[in-house]
This record gives sequence, C-alpha cells and structure tokens, in this order.
Amino acid sequence: MQFKYLNLVRERNPLVHCMTNIVVANFSANGLLALGASPFMSTSPQEVAEIQTFGQALLINIGTLNKSDVDAMLIAGKAANQQGIPVVLDPVGAGATAYRRQVTSQLLSEIQFTAIRGNAAEIAFLANVDWQGKGVDAGQGEANLGEIARTAAQKYQCIVAVSGEIDYLSDGKNVIQIANGTPLFPKITGSGCLLGAVIAAFLGVVDKQDNLNAVVEACTVYALAGEIAAQNLSTQVGSFATAFLNQLAEISCENLTALLKLNKENNNA
Amino acid sequence: MQFKYLNLVRERNPLVHCMTNIVVANFSANGLLALGASPFMSTSPQEVAEIQTFGQALLINIGTLNKSDVDAMLIAGKAANQQGIPVVLDPVGAGATAYRRQVTSQLLSEIQFTAIRGNAAEIAFLANVDWQGKGVDAGQGEANLGEIARTAAQKYQCIVAVSGEIDYLSDGKNVIQIANGTPLFPKITGSGCLLGAVIAAFLGVVDKQDNLNAVVEACTVYALAGEIAAQNLSTQVGSFATAFLNQLAEISCENLTALLKLNKENNNA
Amino acid sequence: MQFKYLNLVRERNPLVHCMTNIVVANFSANGLLALGASPFMSTSPQEVAEIQTFGQALLINIGTLNKSDVDAMLIAGKAANQQGIPVVLDPVGAGATAYRRQVTSQLLSEIQFTAIRGNAAEIAFLANVDWQGKGVDAGQGEANLGEIARTAAQKYQCIVAVSGEIDYLSDGKNVIQIANGTPLFPKITGSGCLLGAVIAAFLGVVDKQDNLNAVVEACTVYALAGEIAAQNLSTQVGSFATAFLNQLAEISCENLTALLKLNKENNNA
Repeated sequence: MQFKYLNLVRERNPLVHCMTNIVVANFSANGLLALGASPFMSTSPQEVAEIQTFGQALLINIGTLNKSDVDAMLIAGKAANQQGIPVVLDPVGAGATAYRRQVTSQLLSEIQFTAIRGNAAEIAFLANVDWQGKGVDAGQGEANLGEIARTAAQKYQCIVAVSGEIDYLSDGKNVIQIANGTPLFPKITGSGCLLGAVIAAFLGVVDKQDNLNAVVEACTVYALAGEIAAQNLSTQVGSFATAFLNQLAEISCENLTALLKLNKENNNA
Repeated sequence: MQFKYLNLVRERNPLVHCMTNIVVANFSANGLLALGASPFMSTSPQEVAEIQTFGQALLINIGTLNKSDVDAMLIAGKAANQQGIPVVLDPVGAGATAYRRQVTSQLLSEIQFTAIRGNAAEIAFLANVDWQGKGVDAGQGEANLGEIARTAAQKYQCIVAVSGEIDYLSDGKNVIQIANGTPLFPKITGSGCLLGAVIAAFLGVVDKQDNLNAVVEACTVYALAGEIAAQNLSTQVGSFATAFLNQLAEISCENLTALLKLNKENNNA
Repeated sequence: MQFKYLNLVRERNPLVHCMTNIVVANFSANGLLALGASPFMSTSPQEVAEIQTFGQALLINIGTLNKSDVDAMLIAGKAANQQGIPVVLDPVGAGATAYRRQVTSQLLSEIQFTAIRGNAAEIAFLANVDWQGKGVDAGQGEANLGEIARTAAQKYQCIVAVSGEIDYLSDGKNVIQIANGTPLFPKITGSGCLLGAVIAAFLGVVDKQDNLNAVVEACTVYALAGEIAAQNLSTQVGSFATAFLNQLAEISCENLTALLKLNKENNNA
C-alpha cells in the first residue's frame, strides 16, 4: 500500500465541520488538530449552510440529538451536497431507539453521503440485517460483516466502513479488511466518533475518484496509531487516550508498512 | 467488608443511561467504560422513555440545564420508575439558584429516586439544613454530615451519599462513613458527577435489597481508586485524571481490604 | 514585573461563571480548578442573572451557539454590568459566518465588556481590519497586531488581548507584548478559550484600576505555564494537555521572572 493522503492532510489542514455529540466534541477536535486538520464545531441552524461554502468536509454524528441539531444537520448536509463537499455520517446507536431510526432514515433520504462509518450494530441496522446491538455499543451477531458493509454501500451509494476488531470497508463492490488496531479502542469513548471525523478530513483533500483509497488510508492510519499507542499498555485506558492523541500527531507514512494487516478482496458479488 | 459487586459490574456491563451535563459527559462516559459499564448518553425527550426499556440504570445530573433537558429528565425518571430501573439523582448546585431549587424540587416530587449523591451543600439543601455552598462547590457548614445524610434519606425514602473528605452514606437508618479518597478529587471537574454514574452502574447489577451495600461498595471502590491513583502525585491534577481512569479499570477486589477506612454506625435515631 | 494576582486567585478562589462552548467546557473547568478558581458552568436563561449576584466574574464564549445560549448571554452580561462584575468576551470565529458576526455585534452593543480575548482573525474582525481567518483558527494577515489590539480596545472601551505566537495586549493606550508560550498551544483545542476563562478569574480578584495589570499577569502566567509544560515535548499534544493542567496548578510567582519575555511600549498614538 502506498500512503499518500496523510501528508496531504497535514499540508492542506482541511477545515472539517463537525456536527457531533457533547460527549466527544473535545476529543474529536483534539484528534483532528493532532492529525493536522482544522475542526469547526457548530450545530447552529443559522450558520451551518454558510460553513459549507468555506469548509472542505462535513461530519454528521447523531450521538446526542435535539430537534434543533437535526434541523441543522439536514440544512448542512443539503448545502454540502450542493457545494460538492464530502459528507460523512456516523449513525451512533442508529438502531437503538425509534427516534434514532427515524432521524437516521431522514438523514439518509435527504442527504447523499460520501461515506458512512459505524460499528457492526449500526451498519447492520442500515443494511437491514439482524444484529443484537447494545445501546451505542457494537453488541454481537452472526452475519458476515464484509457483506453487511457491501450491502449498505450499495443501498446508500457510498463508501461504508464497519469499525471493530477488524474493520470492513466497501464501496459496494470491493471489500477491504483492516486487521490493525487495539482492544483499547472500545474502552475509550469517542474512538469511533473521532474516526468518522478523521475519514472526513481525508476525504477533504482528495478528488472524488480517490474517495475509497482515502477512506482506506484514514482507517489504516487510525488503526495503526492506536496499535502503536497501545504498545506497553494493558488496561490503562486513561494513558491510552493521551498516547493515542500523541500518535495521531507523530505517526508518519514511512514507518507504517511493516505493521500493516490489510486485505482486499475484489469480489463482484 | 466483602467486595462482590465490582466483578458483577464487569461481568454484566450494565447499560447506564446518563442524562448529564456538557462539562462532564466525556469524563463520565470514559469512567463508566473504564469500570466495565456501558454508557448511553441522551437527553432527547423523544427517546429517553424507550431507553428505560433496555437500560439497567438511569442517572439524572442537573449540572447544566435547559428546558428540553428538564422535560426529558421527568419523562425518563417516570419511565424508569415504571420499569423498576434504579434512578440516581445528582443535584449539582441544587441550592445555588432559584431555578436549580425549583428543578430539584420538581424532580424529587415526580420521581422516586433510588439514590441521591451530592456534596455537603447540595444534600444540606435537600435536608433543609443551613449550609454555605459556593456555586457548585461544597462550601462549608457546621452541621453533622451523617445526620444530614440520614435526614435526606428519610425525607426522600432513598439512599443518600454525601461526598467529601469523608463520605457519609445513609438509608435513613444506618450511617456509613468512608474515609478513603484524595484531596485531588475536588481539584478535577466531574469527580462527583462520575461517582453518581458509578453508583448507578452498581445499582444496575443488584437486587433491591442489596441497594445500600451496592452504593457503599461503589463509593468505596471509587474512593480507593482515587487514593491509589493519587499516590506519588501532589498537585498534578492533569496526571491525576489520567491515573484515576487507569485505576478504575485496574482496581481489583482482592487488594482493597488493607487500605479500607470504613465505619458503620447502626444508630436507629 | 511584579507578580501579585496569581496568589490572590489561589487565596480567594473566585467563582467564574463560564458561558462557554461544548468543545471546551471540561478543559475550561479543569483549567480553572487547577489555577485555584471555582468554575460555574451554566447557559440557562432562567438562572444566569442570579449567578451574577454571587459570582466574581463572567466569561462569554461564542464557540458553539444556539438561540437560547445567545438569549442567556445577553441576560447574563447585562446583569453582570449592573452588579459591577467583570465580563470577558471570547468571540470565537467572530468573522467566520454572518451569524457569528451578528451575535458578536449584538453582544458588543448591549454589554460593556471588561476584556476581550481572541486570536488575530477575531480581533481584526472587531477592529474592522482585513484579515484572512480560517474557521475558528487564526489564519494570517499583514496588519500590525499591536495596532489592531489598540484599535479594538479604543473602539470597545476595554482591554483587548490578541493571542498568538506573541500576545498583544492593549487598553487603548498602552501596548504590551508577551513572547512567552509554546507552538503546542494551537495544537490543542480550547487553549485560547481557557485563557479567556483565566483572564476572567484574574479580573475577579482585582479592583477596576488594576484591570490591565491583571490581564497582563493572567496572559503571562498562562503563557509561561504552557512554555514550561512543553519542555521536552515536541509533537506530543496529548501529553501537553495533561502537563499544562499540571503546570497551572504548580506554577509559582517566584520562578517566573527569569523566563519572562515581556515588552511594554507606552505609545500614545
């Protein structure tokens, strides 16, 4: 694998408009800054359309919602579509409640997303596959996660990333597996949410035809930064959060290849 | 003392619905994850009743409020009561403003709480005892904190925990003192708020008759984790927050007994 | 330079009412606690006027906004003016969108601020000087930052602090430069926002005629704490945030003078 977009993110510092939840707003902003991107956090209906005229990417994360947030997300997403700005959806807990199911459906029907990132339960819900989620956590199920990613990607005509012990990415045709990462990721809040923001940052520096490669590199860099940060840590979740932010700033394309556990299947199902 | 609920929390990973403030949402989620519980953060009136149908415990923390939050808290609390889910109140700054006094009274009159956790000023306000609070901080007063805890517990028919240098817990009859902890706790924001969430997690894995023991163990584990984390730290508040999250994940029942400073008085006043 | 207000902050623990954004609420509260002040976070229109009757300082930060927040800021600011409480404005991203321009104008026309703290882009916008901001980041421009600070200070009849590699402070007459700090500051979110809160804490312990000296000391202590915390760190942004909170608690007036890079020009332009 050729890494090339990470340096582009650091050179261009894409402005990523994050419409995200109150739990992870700080961690997401710090993660983007560490990576080299420029976060702009706002859910004000009065300004979110205008932000798409100068931003490079938009993230919509439904972790905590109120009516005004949902209104603003619809305004921002449509404006981003008009401006040709990439839009990433993080459907936190999408299947967990009727309200989240309804909001997710509305967002997906009114906005064309460039990429969707979620855990197994969230993407299984989007793909209409049975899965036993647990609140906003991944839970467990029997289905093939690569197929779930592919089904959801076909259904919503975008790139889909299923995060977990192994990440499964698909553009509706290809399925890519990334086996890097660390068991400490699900032990800190927002590790998935920040990945959504990082995907948006990578999408913010590439042309449309490179979207899949950009998302694969975003997920790979992220997983490797976590893997390196977790070295010599076992259960120290507080230390891990700190070390991970350090790694997002320090990781370089040069030293990634040896650690890489990437698998791509070209299966035109 | 027999520790037994900590391992139960780690085995069952109770889903704790946290309706909490914007200041501590991240720290509370990370603390619950470190402990082994599963946080779900939401103040959406549209979904908080439904969350009680699959959650194991509910925390209501009034640290930062708006009208929609209060509406949602009332909906969630009543639904939790109907479902038989334990509900914990953290009346942050309860006596500090007329608005907080009014919201606290309304919550207490419409919801039956399983436990209330606050600092001396907050619980003194609930017990109608004179106390000089300072904003959301404990302030100072003359009254006997064990008696304040017992009075509030009798008044609201629930377990009351007064956090401070010494914690005072009561079910309206017994008063238990926990002298563990660290002076660094009040130097980081949310150390009390996270304890409220941890109490909820412990209540989420026990039967009703074990509620008092569960709250005592929650407060003891929490205080000891802080005490151990603070070893070798003096004023390093940033390092303490990190070390404390590490300890919440690492602390084990086996090594707690030697450090314990627990005192129980069976005084049927 | 004679340091004298830092110890006063630690002795009096001023209650600082922070109306701030969801991204930095936790970091701001922890920073104020580390310093020795007492944070009270609230944007409830129902209580913000009352908070001015017992608080020592008010911070208004427009980083993330909704209609209710703006209403509450206007209520709080006017109440603080009536009570004679110092009020600090942090006009985050002031020039970035029409909405922020409108909110900033309204706040500035209805509230008399004691101090305004922002980055170059934000203060240039207030001073009506051309500048190329980037979202909520400083961006770049050609104008003389000392003159921009002085112009804004004259226009709004208050102290103005422009944060950056060199801080420029002015009361409309004097211009003070502080060349301390670290390049890691803009790599963590909220380093500017927390400075606004720290300025409020210092203003909360002085008489009106010492306001300029208090703001100069606040910015100097802050910059030096960052500089010391960054020693031996290069790109480790996560570690820096932790070390910086430690330093805010540990820094003492005695060991600051040797490191100081302070420059004052008495230029009655």
